[in-house]
Parts: sequence; C-alpha cells; structure tokens
Amino acid sequence: MSSKILKVGIVGATGYTGVELLRLLIGHEQVDIQVVTSNSEKDQYVTNVFPSLSGYLDLKFSEHDSPVLTECDVVFFATPHATSMYKIPELLNANVKIIDLSADFRLQDAEQWQHWYGIEHAAPELLESAVYGLPEINRDQISKADLVANPGCYPTAVSLGFLPLLEAGIVDLNSLIADAKSGVSGAGRKAAMASLFSEASESFKAYGVSGHRHLPEICQTLSLCSGQAVDITFVPHLVPMVRGIFATLYARLKQKDIDVTDIYTTRYINEPFVEVLPNGSQPDTREVRGTNMCRIAVSQSQDSDKIVVLSVIDNLVKGAAGQAIQNMNIMFGLDEVSGLNLPAIYP
Amino acid sequence: MSSKILKVGIVGATGYTGVELLRLLIGHEQVDIQVVTSNSEKDQYVTNVFPSLSGYLDLKFSEHDSPVLTECDVVFFATPHATSMYKIPELLNANVKIIDLSADFRLQDAEQWQHWYGIEHAAPELLESAVYGLPEINRDQISKADLVANPGCYPTAVSLGFLPLLEAGIVDLNSLIADAKSGVSGAGRKAAMASLFSEASESFKAYGVSGHRHLPEICQTLSLCSGQAVDITFVPHLVPMVRGIFATLYARLKQKDIDVTDIYTTRYINEPFVEVLPNGSQPDTREVRGTNMCRIAVSQSQDSDKIVVLSVIDNLVKGAAGQAIQNMNIMFGLDEVSGLNLPAIYP
Amino acid sequence: MSSKILKVGIVGATGYTGVELLRLLIGHEQVDIQVVTSNSEKDQYVTNVFPSLSGYLDLKFSEHDSPVLTECDVVFFATPHATSMYKIPELLNANVKIIDLSADFRLQDAEQWQHWYGIEHAAPELLESAVYGLPEINRDQISKADLVANPGCYPTAVSLGFLPLLEAGIVDLNSLIADAKSGVSGAGRKAAMASLFSEASESFKAYGVSGHRHLPEICQTLSLCSGQAVDITFVPHLVPMVRGIFATLYARLKQKDIDVTDIYTTRYINEPFVEVLPNGSQPDTREVRGTNMCRIAVSQSQDSDKIVVLSVIDNLVKGAAGQAIQNMNIMFGLDEVSGLNLPAIYP
Amino acid sequence: MSSKILKVGIVGATGYTGVELLRLLIGHEQVDIQVVTSNSEKDQYVTNVFPSLSGYLDLKFSEHDSPVLTECDVVFFATPHATSMYKIPELLNANVKIIDLSADFRLQDAEQWQHWYGIEHAAPELLESAVYGLPEINRDQISKADLVANPGCYPTAVSLGFLPLLEAGIVDLNSLIADAKSGVSGAGRKAAMASLFSEASESFKAYGVSGHRHLPEICQTLSLCSGQAVDITFVPHLVPMVRGIFATLYARLKQKDIDVTDIYTTRYINEPFVEVLPNGSQPDTREVRGTNMCRIAVSQSQDSDKIVVLSVIDNLVKGAAGQAIQNMNIMFGLDEVSGLNLPAIYP
Repeated sequence: MSSKILKVGIVGATGYTGVELLRLLIGHEQVDIQVVTSNSEKDQYVTNVFPSLSGYLDLKFSEHDSPVLTECDVVFFATPHATSMYKIPELLNANVKIIDLSADFRLQDAEQWQHWYGIEHAAPELLESAVYGLPEINRDQISKADLVANPGCYPTAVSLGFLPLLEAGIVDLNSLIADAKSGVSGAGRKAAMASLFSEASESFKAYGVSGHRHLPEICQTLSLCSGQAVDITFVPHLVPMVRGIFATLYARLKQKDIDVTDIYTTRYINEPFVEVLPNGSQPDTREVRGTNMCRIAVSQSQDSDKIVVLSVIDNLVKGAAGQAIQNMNIMFGLDEVSGLNLPAIYP
Repeated sequence: MSSKILKVGIVGATGYTGVELLRLLIGHEQVDIQVVTSNSEKDQYVTNVFPSLSGYLDLKFSEHDSPVLTECDVVFFATPHATSMYKIPELLNANVKIIDLSADFRLQDAEQWQHWYGIEHAAPELLESAVYGLPEINRDQISKADLVANPGCYPTAVSLGFLPLLEAGIVDLNSLIADAKSGVSGAGRKAAMASLFSEASESFKAYGVSGHRHLPEICQTLSLCSGQAVDITFVPHLVPMVRGIFATLYARLKQKDIDVTDIYTTRYINEPFVEVLPNGSQPDTREVRGTNMCRIAVSQSQDSDKIVVLSVIDNLVKGAAGQAIQNMNIMFGLDEVSGLNLPAIYP
Repeated sequence: MSSKILKVGIVGATGYTGVELLRLLIGHEQVDIQVVTSNSEKDQYVTNVFPSLSGYLDLKFSEHDSPVLTECDVVFFATPHATSMYKIPELLNANVKIIDLSADFRLQDAEQWQHWYGIEHAAPELLESAVYGLPEINRDQISKADLVANPGCYPTAVSLGFLPLLEAGIVDLNSLIADAKSGVSGAGRKAAMASLFSEASESFKAYGVSGHRHLPEICQTLSLCSGQAVDITFVPHLVPMVRGIFATLYARLKQKDIDVTDIYTTRYINEPFVEVLPNGSQPDTREVRGTNMCRIAVSQSQDSDKIVVLSVIDNLVKGAAGQAIQNMNIMFGLDEVSGLNLPAIYP
Repeated sequence: MSSKILKVGIVGATGYTGVELLRLLIGHEQVDIQVVTSNSEKDQYVTNVFPSLSGYLDLKFSEHDSPVLTECDVVFFATPHATSMYKIPELLNANVKIIDLSADFRLQDAEQWQHWYGIEHAAPELLESAVYGLPEINRDQISKADLVANPGCYPTAVSLGFLPLLEAGIVDLNSLIADAKSGVSGAGRKAAMASLFSEASESFKAYGVSGHRHLPEICQTLSLCSGQAVDITFVPHLVPMVRGIFATLYARLKQKDIDVTDIYTTRYINEPFVEVLPNGSQPDTREVRGTNMCRIAVSQSQDSDKIVVLSVIDNLVKGAAGQAIQNMNIMFGLDEVSGLNLPAIYP
C-alpha cells in the first residue's frame, strides 16, 4: 500500500454531504485537504460556516473554478445534480481522479438520466467509463477508475439488501418490494418548508410514491446483479430523525428450504463494511450512526416462502461521504478502511 | 337520539390510553365521568398525576374494585392484557355495558388467545358475544352489544386500509404485506429501557418481525371481510415520534383495469371517520394527530397490477380511546361523532 | 352575555398563528368564519394547505383586500410585522374591530417601534388608542377597545411571571433576569435554514442575546405594572420542540420574610387562564400544550432573598391565537373561556 | 512522552458514560482495554449489549471484582454514586491509578457528601488526596494523582464558564446565577418514567430547583477559584435532546469598563479543550456533540454592568468520559489530546 499523502479537493462543500466528507477526511491520515469550494460561501473560513470542524481545518472556501482543483490527486463533487457533469471533463483531462457524490454519472443511459433529471446530459460520452461506486459489486473496476459515480443513499441500502438474493437467483423477480425510510438530512441542507423542524418532527409520511429518482438507479444495479431486467416497488418515507436509512425489503423465495442468512453471510464474509446479523435480528439505525457500516438481518420463517430483509446504513456515511472515501481508498490502493474506522456514536 | 347523560367509569386510567380517554370524555357533553380507577395511584387526584387535565376533572383515583363501577352505564377498561377478563363478567351481570380497550376479547378463539398471550383465557364463554369494535364493519352489532372489544392500533390502521380490496375480492390474497410504523406512545406509559428518549429518539427500527400480537387480530378481521382465510406479512416499526401510525400496504391486483380509489371512496362515503384522498395523495400522521380520523390514499400506477395503500391514524385516538368513544356513541344511540369533533393539532 | 354569532375574518392565515386561530375558532360556538386571506395561497382551499382542518372548514383563501373583511364584526391579523398597520385604519373606519397578532401596535412609542422594526410606523396616530391585549392587566380597556394589540409570546410568559412581584413592589428592579426558552414554531412557518429539522433538532442554543424585539415590549409592560421604568436582562433560547415557552425568572426580594406564592395566588385567583402552583412545583410545557393556560410556580428558599419563578405557556395559544380569542371574547361580552375550554393533549 | 500502552479497566460500563468511554478509548492508540465489568451483563459480549461498538471490541463483561482490575495501569469507575468508594481503596493499594466518574470523591467534605448523597462516606480518608479532575484548574495535581474525581457535567460547564470572572475578582459574588440545560442522557441509561420518549420529547421543564447534587460541587470549585465562599443560584432544566449541556450564566461586574472577552481569551489561551468565541457569539450544543470541547462566549453590553456567559459542552464527553480520558492522558504523561482529537458530528 502507498504511504503517499493524497491531495484532495472538494467541490460544493456546504451541504450535509460535504461537511461529512470534511469530518471524515480530517481524520484520514493519508489525506491533505487542499481546496474546498462553494460559490455561496466564497472567502469565508470553512469553520465559520461549520463550527463543528473548529480547530481542525484552516481553509477558506474557494470558488468552484479554483485552479487548485487541477493540482489535486482526487476531487470529490458534493454538488446538486446537473452540476458536476459540466466540470468533470476538464478535471479528468488534467489527470485528476473524480468521485462524484451527485447523481450525474450514476445512470448509464443518457436518455433515462434526462427523463428523471429533466435536462440533457452534458457529458454522455463519459457515462460508459464512469464506474458505479458500490465496492461490494465493483471493487476491481473502482480500483482502476478515473471517474467513480458514488451511489445514492437509498440505492446503497436497498441494493446491498437485495444483492445476495438476486445473485443467487432464488427469488421471484416480480415480488420485490423496498419499503425504505430516511432521516431528514437526506433532503439536504437547504431551506425548504417540508424540512422545517415544526413540519418534520412528530410526524411520519411517505413521499415520491409515484416515482423517485433513486428507483432507476436501484433497478439498474439489481438488473446487473441478476443478469436480467428487474423492476421493484419502491416507497420512500421520511422519519423524524436526522441520520439513517432503514430499508425493509420483501421478496418471495422460489423454494422454501434455503438458509438465506447463510447465503448472506457467505456473500459478505470479506466485506469490511457489511455485517450480516443472525436470522431474526433487528438492527436499528442508531447502531450505524456516523459509521460506514451496513448492517443486514434476514427474517425467514420456517415454512414460508416469504422473506423479509432489514438493511440499515447512515445515509450521510455509507450512503454518501463514507462510501466516497471507501472508493478513494480503493482507487489509490490504500487500506480500504482508512479514515473509516470509527465506532458509532451512541446514544 | 338520546339526550341522557351517561354515567361512565374507567378502569386502569394511568396509561396513555386512559388519559386520552379522559381528555376526550371531558369534552363529551353527554358524559359524566363517575369513577376512574388505578391501584397504583389510589387516592391521588387524577389531575396530580395528569396535570394536562388540570381544571377539568375533580376526581381521585379509586381502586379497581370500586362499587361505583356497577352503577355506571358504561365502563371502559384501559388495562394491560389479562386483566379485564377477570372483572368484566361481574360488571356485565350488573347490566353495565363494557368497552374493553385491552386485548382480552379481540380474538374469538380462546386457544389462539392463549397462544399469543401466554395464559388461559378466564372468560372464554364471553368471546362469542363480544363484538369487535370496528364500526366500519360491525356498526349494527356494536349498537346492540353489551361487550365491545376495542381494536388494537395496528389492526385498525391495517384493516381499514385493506378492507375495500378484500370485500371487493380484487386482490391476490397471498400478496398482502403491511409495513407499519408506530410512534413510541404505542409502547405504553411504563418505564422500559427501549422506550427511553435516549434510546428511541434519532433512531428507527423494526420489532416483532417474527410475530406480533396484532397479527392474528388483523388476520381474523381480514378473513372475515374476504370470506376466506387470509394471512399477511406484517412488520411493525418504531418511529421517533409520540403519536401516530402509518401503514404502508402492498397488494397485487387480480386485474389491472380497476379504479381502486373509486372503490375506496364508495366504500367509505358514509363513514364519518375515514377520509379517502385522491389517488397518489400522501397523507402524514400529523394530519390526524389528536383526532379520530383515518386518512387513506391509494397509489395505483396505470399499467401495473401492484397497488400501494397508505393508511394513517393517531394510535391513541382512532387506534384506541377515540374509537372506544365512537363505539360508546353507537352503543347508546348518540351522535356517532359526539366528543370527537376536533380538528388536528398542527404544528 | 350575547348569544350573537360573530362574523370573523382572518388576514394572513398561512402561518402557524393563523392555522392555530382557525383550529380554535372552528370549535368556538359563537363564531362564523367568513373570510380567510392569503396572497400566496389565494383561491386554494384552506384545507388543502392545512389538511389538519379537513372536514371543518369549507373556504378558499381570499386576497388580503377582500371586501368581505369590512363586513366582519372582528378581523384578526396574523401577518408579519409592518403589514397590518397599512390596512387596519381602513377597517376601523368601517367599524370592524381588530385584534392584531403582529407587533405593529404593541409598542406605544412610534420612535421606539421604528428603532426595533427598522421602518417608520404607518399609523402612529393609532398607537395611543390601541389596547395591549393582556387581559390580566387590561381587561376593562380591552372590553371597550376597537383595536387590540395582542402580546408577543415571550412577553406573555415573562410579564405574567413577573407581574405580581412588580405590582407588590417587593423586588429590587435592577435584579430582574428572564431566561426564556421557546419551541421552534416561534420562528414561524417559513423556510429558514436555522429552523430546519437537521439544524434545530438534537441541539440547544441562545439567540438574540444582544437584543430581541420582545425586550422593549416586556419592559413597557413591566414598567406599567411597577409604576417606574424597568429594565431586565432577557436571554431567549431555542428548544428542539415545536410548541411551548418556558420562562425561568430571577429576582431579588427587598426582604426575606414574604410568602411570595401567596401573593401570586391572590393576584391570579380570578384569572381563568393563569394557574399558580404550590411553592417549589415544577411545571413543564407539555402540561399546557394546545391550551390557553399559563402555569406559574414560585420557588422560594426559606432564608434567601433570591427568588425563582417558572412560567410556562403554549406560544401558539396563550402566546398568540388563544389569547387573541380570549381578547375577542372580552371585546364582545362573551364568556371569556368560550372556545378555549380544552384540556392539554398528552402525551 | 511515553509510548507505553496503558492497560485499562472500566468498572460499571453499561451506562451511557461507560459506553462513551469505550467508544473513545477504542480510538486511543496508547490504550489497551483489558477488562470491562458489569454485574448485570456478566458474560455477555460487550458488543451484544452495545452494537454500536460492533467490530471494535472482543471482550465479555466481567464481574465487578474481576482480578484483572488489579493488573491494570488505570481503572475508570463509571458506576452510580456510593459504589466506587467501597472498591477504590483496594485498587489503590494494588498501585492501580483511579479515575472515578461517579460523585464519590468530588466533595472534599465527608459530612457534606453524606448530606447530599444520604449515606455515610465509606472512605473519607481518601477525600483529601483525591484530586478534582478539572484540568483547567488542577493540571499539575492531576499529573501526580493516584485518584482523580472526575467532575460532574453541570459543574464542568458552569465552572469553566465562571472561572475567569472569579479568578479575576471582577464580579459581585452575590450575583451569580447559572441557568443550565441538559440533554436527557444526563439522566442515565436506566428505565425511568420521566426519561421516556413520550414524556421527555416535545416538552421542557426545570427540575431540582430546590437543590441539586451538583450545586455543592459547583460552589466548592468556585470558592476555590475566588478564594472565598461562593454561593450561586443554580437551576437545571431538561431539554428534549440526547446530548449536550448549555449553561447561561449571569453575573454583575464590579465596574463596567472591563473587556471581559479578553480576560477569557487570555485565561484559556493554552487550553486545548476550551475555545473562547468573540464577544456576542452564540454557540450551540450541536457544535460540540461527540467532542471534548467547551465553547464559551461572553455577551457584554457597552454600558451595562451585567454580563451573560454562554458555556456549552457535550455532557457525556467533556462532562464525563472525554474529560476522564483527558485526565488519564495527564496522569500518564501522554499528549493531553490523545484519543480526543475528533471533530463534532454534524448534522
């Protein structure tokens, strides 16, 4: 493994994903944060905007087109969708590796992207070479990639939860349901009525029932895993908590006499950030708060062909910033857990 | 309708269900609360234990065997399970009508009851005459009943959500899934580690995945509605909020060209406490907080045989105390909405 | 008392204060809501914007200059500051009584108003005749008023808490400190970063330490009560809850041997919405949630000249909409508690 | 500095303080956790009780009288009060250094201790040699101590907030008020009605107004700092959040023309875990969540002799486990920030 110190840049670091990247990268011993950009907070000290980092970072926000970006080894984009696709080609030309936490390079099909995001893709020629950054299925490709599209939060929890079932080919593909629940930080750090404390606390709701942008991303991944087109029913919900995704997954087994927990355990035995619990266990999101872990439990009744899988992550870590750092570690040959070796904060 | 003032007693009023009964009965113009019992708080003023009622009730807690109970027109039991079944026969003999908010008379089969609650039923001879108090299916029987078994909170939300589908016979009975979420007050007013603020806040979890006591109750109701045995997959979850149940229901239609929202609207058109929203609507629990309403929305995609139904209630009102008062109103020929005519508290 | 039905209008009803007014007025038997205005939601059904009121109000939002307003007996303004002062003169000329929940007529001094609110007052000639709507000190004047300035939430809790001390002249006026805490709904129903769930939950902070607009209002009231100029130290804080104000008040007694609780009890003995608890009691905001009550407890140590007073209200009820209705009841000779006779919702 | 690996034991690690100690010690490179005791969870894997630590600790809980304790370099007690005082003498005799997070050795006067804790002190002979573990005043003594009494959470926030004022002798000692607010985790990990989610959320209250056990501890520290007996008014409050203490401190200056922020800045310039913000700043508890920092802001008006100081900490870190590790670092000559060099988790 390399002991080199990576020069790192972050574009668009004023959101929750950006500040979580900063928190984790500050603790990563092989990283030197060179430049952090924000057009809205330009020339402000980062720690003025984020006092939580006070004492740990002596940088001001630069503009998005800071020339320092081209001198970095790797640049993270933590921008809203339809932003990074304009900037990434230039940085790739400057031999900067890119980890894009936005949605711009997650879908391989430019038309489908346009359908869900409402504008034409600005760099469709890169879609094929962009690697979908879910290490549990694409580790080798990530290690060689110049451009990694970091998965969405729901797709990470749902895909890791369904993966072993689909790879093993043991479920009816028409039976898949993902009832997913997310904390409010998933809506981002922007002033929106529905995300107000007085609106979101002491309430629970579904949203995007008729179609959520993470659905095509999930289906793309699951189709890849199963080798055939997969469609699922996906209903996201909003939980009155800040962090965490909880995915309750339903499927029908083709036959009853299968030890499904054993299949999961075997599949993930070498994965540093997936922990399979004993059959019938009940993880909660608190157990992974602030960490890059995905905890999965299968609930299988003896004489039933129905199966329930529970998959929990921290949406800002394994669902965003932590997985991005995991990808960086893989891309640069570092220990995959570097900077991510933190127990959960409890209570 | 009668203009008589009912003499009312409440047994076991120190839980959240009991205090909610008191809050609502205080505002009911045809009710006079005669006696409120609690063995643990005996001789305490009710308003000392529940300052939220201060100024509205000038009673002390009596013992459970207070003789005043036999002089009441109706007695509510808000006791833990396996309590009311010992006391109810005596009160019925004294011509007191009973509304039991506990689980003791919800299941019609004594053996099944014993299986789920772990002890032998003390009054199995009453199980047949006890009426399951879901007015939307049993209004006539409730109006003639002496003993009403008030439904559980999950069964209310789930049954009302599935009911029109099953009565219409338009879904595959093997496809039913209820992914249900409840606020923490559902766990009751008792000191338990898992219900602590520091444990339950900022987290989300499933529980009872392998079997919850509300499952047989749900299946009993749905089987009754469909005319054949129905089994469902039921996964309850705990939401970091105090009040509210949100049930996300999944089913597969036998054929695609059915306007399901129309079926729901027709089914519930005359129900004072069920509101069917337009197709694709997204209710939240806040909209029913403190009220007896069940709000239901169907989400049906044009070319799919899969259907999602969202059903929300306040677990302490339509899921407990409010439904009990609705039942009382029906039993005594009062206006069914008396005492329950309150908009939700928001925010 | 009059049995007349009042025709009521509400200007600017899309905020939390407005919807709380609607909730309470819906339950007021002598009120008929004629018109509800909002420029932003014009022509929308009120219940589409506020599903919590579904089934209880069949009105659409009108524009602010709806002619129906002039036909009302009373119009409530629930607008941001610097709005009502432009409209009120015209309505007063049309013999409509006004209850202004905004800050426009709370301060009697136009220059002071301009200092704190940053623009010139548009109707300074009305400041003298406007009556400050704290019934506990101004009941008679309110009963004859055409224009009532409804107090702010902090001033209500703090003034009621200090009032008996100042009227009795038993404290050092230079010793007064109000450490006040408010739920997030006090910040209003507008998209603001600091009010986001992810920002406001699981945190606590002070704000406005160097000067809050409620300070001059508090000082004006306390000066009136004590008969001399009073200045206090006032530090507001933000609590991660939706509703409630908790004021912890500190003062130094001029002499030790005074039974302060007795003074409070006597002072408020006839007040329907102030409850004085025994010395040393510890009220919490939950006990008044959704109600118009102010609960006050004095904590006095035997041999100390220092005194602590705890004063709690629901900021949206006694601190806004409820007090406004209390004022309406007084202005029109109705029973002062009409529409406000509700126990608190708990839990 | 020593590069030795310390052998560490923890007695009573099933509370929130214990698990926070474990979280932080796991990340401390010079620590090897040898033994973790709990009578109630004996023989359970620590990570079964605390899944948040899963993957980071391969130990089972031992009994409190595990012989391994005597082989440790240092033992932390995270027990309820009146527990450690029976066990510590024996360990001191075995040359084990002790950091006691309980209250047993915080008060120097055995009678006063008995008054507040209700039983006779079991090891009064150790009270004199026990060092109060607030590094900002006792660093040298801590470095030589065998037994450190780790301060309480409120005393840490309040003492650090008042310290510079008292050392400088610039305030009227009779004017000190501490209005303190704590998250619910301060009540500990035990099933208690008042700490239930349904009781503590969406509410705010004061408690212990007539006297809290942390008061004598605060007065002892402040008296030490000022060189004369100091008494303060101390009112603790409960905030519906898990972590954090916010102390709003009031005092009267002897003269007005003093730059108080400058005094604070100078006093704490070399302190690694106290950050003084510019005059008028408004810290919040979120900024220190999960960290050992105390952030302090002074609010001083130009022409007033009144001063407000805001002091925030994480009650479980600087108020308990983090300060204990800071003390350990000092006692063993390690870098004082080892294991504590973590930015706050936000949001």
